[in-house]
Amino acid sequence: MFKKILIANRGEIAVRIIRACREMGIETVAVYSTVDKEALHVQMADESICIGTETDNCYTNISRILSAAELTSSEAIHPGFGFLSENSRFAEICRKCNITFIGPSAEVIDKMGNKSNARELMQQANVPVIPGTKKPLNNEQDAREMVEELGYPVMIKAASGGGGRGIRIVRNKDELLNAFSTAKKEAKAFFGDDTLYMEKYLENPRHVEVQILADKYGEVLYLGERDCSIQRRNQKVVEEAPCPVMTEELREKMGQAAVRAAKYVGYENAGTIEFLLDKHNNFYFMEMNTRIQVEHPVTEEIVGMDLIKEQIKIAAGKRLEKTQDDIVLKGHSIECRINAEDPQESFMPCPGKVSGLFIPNGLGVRVDSLLYDGYTIPSNYDSMIAKLIVHGKDREEAINRMKRALGEFVILGVKNNIDFHLDILNNDDFVKGSYDTNFINNQSF
Amino acid sequence: MFKKILIANRGEIAVRIIRACREMGIETVAVYSTVDKEALHVQMADESICIGTETDNCYTNISRILSAAELTSSEAIHPGFGFLSENSRFAEICRKCNITFIGPSAEVIDKMGNKSNARELMQQANVPVIPGTKKPLNNEQDAREMVEELGYPVMIKAASGGGGRGIRIVRNKDELLNAFSTAKKEAKAFFGDDTLYMEKYLENPRHVEVQILADKYGEVLYLGERDCSIQRRNQKVVEEAPCPVMTEELREKMGQAAVRAAKYVGYENAGTIEFLLDKHNNFYFMEMNTRIQVEHPVTEEIVGMDLIKEQIKIAAGKRLEKTQDDIVLKGHSIECRINAEDPQESFMPCPGKVSGLFIPNGLGVRVDSLLYDGYTIPSNYDSMIAKLIVHGKDREEAINRMKRALGEFVILGVKNNIDFHLDILNNDDFVKGSYDTNFINNQSF
Repeated sequence: MFKKILIANRGEIAVRIIRACREMGIETVAVYSTVDKEALHVQMADESICIGTETDNCYTNISRILSAAELTSSEAIHPGFGFLSENSRFAEICRKCNITFIGPSAEVIDKMGNKSNARELMQQANVPVIPGTKKPLNNEQDAREMVEELGYPVMIKAASGGGGRGIRIVRNKDELLNAFSTAKKEAKAFFGDDTLYMEKYLENPRHVEVQILADKYGEVLYLGERDCSIQRRNQKVVEEAPCPVMTEELREKMGQAAVRAAKYVGYENAGTIEFLLDKHNNFYFMEMNTRIQVEHPVTEEIVGMDLIKEQIKIAAGKRLEKTQDDIVLKGHSIECRINAEDPQESFMPCPGKVSGLFIPNGLGVRVDSLLYDGYTIPSNYDSMIAKLIVHGKDREEAINRMKRALGEFVILGVKNNIDFHLDILNNDDFVKGSYDTNFINNQSF
Repeated sequence: MFKKILIANRGEIAVRIIRACREMGIETVAVYSTVDKEALHVQMADESICIGTETDNCYTNISRILSAAELTSSEAIHPGFGFLSENSRFAEICRKCNITFIGPSAEVIDKMGNKSNARELMQQANVPVIPGTKKPLNNEQDAREMVEELGYPVMIKAASGGGGRGIRIVRNKDELLNAFSTAKKEAKAFFGDDTLYMEKYLENPRHVEVQILADKYGEVLYLGERDCSIQRRNQKVVEEAPCPVMTEELREKMGQAAVRAAKYVGYENAGTIEFLLDKHNNFYFMEMNTRIQVEHPVTEEIVGMDLIKEQIKIAAGKRLEKTQDDIVLKGHSIECRINAEDPQESFMPCPGKVSGLFIPNGLGVRVDSLLYDGYTIPSNYDSMIAKLIVHGKDREEAINRMKRALGEFVILGVKNNIDFHLDILNNDDFVKGSYDTNFINNQSF
């Protein structure tokens, strides 16, 4: 097992990884920018190294992070999520420096990172994809021909896109050409690549994703699914496991598809296959996240496993200890992403000093957080400051527990979305489990 | 179901009960003494009523508590542990006032409250008891005769005793008469009842207790066991579930004995049968606690049930939803009792103001606590300020997680026993699970 791991991240996920390492007896190295020198991950790690200032994007600075790893004799690097976590070049350089990147190989990150490439691979692996172009749309004529085949509505997407950018929904002929040209411009501007493709647009789908674990020896497990349909501008807000409308049969089908996908590309470590699920229980591959995800705790709660420890063990060459039959889902888990933002002002980020803090606790309540009383949340990074996670014997208990915990949570000094979460949890459609990715748009929160 | 419950307690257990009620949609009423007006349970309850000052023992003042219940139209009272929780008179007066006492009947509390009476009942119920007198020792002659039968060492105990008081261990003839007379005086002084009895003294036993749940319809479940051998002056310090040396066979035997005991006395609600377990896997009834216990969370963690909710549902006349076959123990749980005390100064209580606080969190960590930053711990009550509870997939993970969590815990301004707990968790014998009730005495902590 590794003696020392460097965490190439900040915030709650860095704290999360430090905690797992400590329980495994592995030393930790934190890296930080000057603005993060008082951050919790820096205080909790065994060692820490300043790698830059708040203005120089140091958490994505490969050479500085590798220097910090060399300097501290770290044997492995955990990238967390965001920053360098899906950067194949970083994974490759780690390999060349003989430092273990805790994640899949650079080749696999590349394969799945390009959306149209991933789509093609998934079709080869017999994983359902949304009907659409197998090849890029080269011109307006391609777009017109494709839409004939698919029927409206369709979606035009940037091949290198992500985070909801470079996407145009086209509902009729009049919108087609304009959508094609604006999507092309946006794709060029945001991603430096104006390759577009077209897909059938699914009305009101659910976002349901399957967590997988794959070791170096070809064993792949699926750990049930998460429903992440409660989104605002393509950002997940509330996640839960299991999906409220899942059936045993569908879970097995989606799980097996996810395992096929992972095996086909030679995947290794923890990963997530994101699907869209329509009202008729058809599911379609959307993308694969080749890293740990923000919402991984809801899976941990229902399967009783520590996914960060699993990642580390896999990277160290251990075999998966469990078989698919050992994976039994127990109870229900929900996560609310607590952000320092103002729901009254278009969810504008609200960094600042925490002048008072009470973090909920008690049976079935977990908070993965970067907060401590007196901490000043910097304006330079993501506004997510805590993940409030509950586990209950069933969905009803989980909802009631989440409402109880949200009610206890006090963060003074910075505006936050706790009340917004309470509105969601109190919504009748949410309580019924009857929602899709348009839930927040369609409500008058 | 009840609409409103009054909590006749304070501290973390009052907070614990409020949390359960809130998740069930039940309103809560806190009672408090003037010194507790800023206490967390008062801040968290829906309503609160001051029932006395710090000097008048108001948490055991039956008439004031019942007045508060009447005034707030509370339909039920949860007594927590300590205070009035095992006071049969209180249970009886509640019944007469048409307020549900969340616990067993006054008759059952009485039956089990008198130690020699309970012992006799248990023998009738075919539950193993420690060899000893069936009847009180009336005089020195009785004592001499009894010791002939049992053989040294023996223990002389007060019939109405508890908390380790009124107990004398006698290892030889020379000590007998003196032990008899001092135990008699102590019993009279502490419990107002100088009735004594004698038992065989077990060398180095483990304290292993079985949690049971019994509904109003005669159904009784056992929820595995807790090992509470890590004690200091008969006060539990660390508890864990399951017991590290338990076998499936022994668990079933102890569980069935506990169920027999509960059924024989017509028990209702949550209760605990405490046993002593010797090196040869013989177990002997010690006493029954007719209330929820401090250490109930370790059972909750391994069985996935909320025992406070179960207590409330039983009191409201609901049937147990699970059968014995549904009770599956999962993983391992440990609890450390965090006290405001100074281990360097004979564990003297150290109340005072909390000037800084960081409560551990993350996967598998739970803290049931009365603490918040800035809170002043009063000197009038128990020194326990938090229960740190962990759950892991096995005992090894639970120990490592507890060490991680203890390491994160910061309480500034008041001395506490966090480092003392770390010493226990790092002890080789503890790690091996090889300990008994003399563990703390025998170590040089």
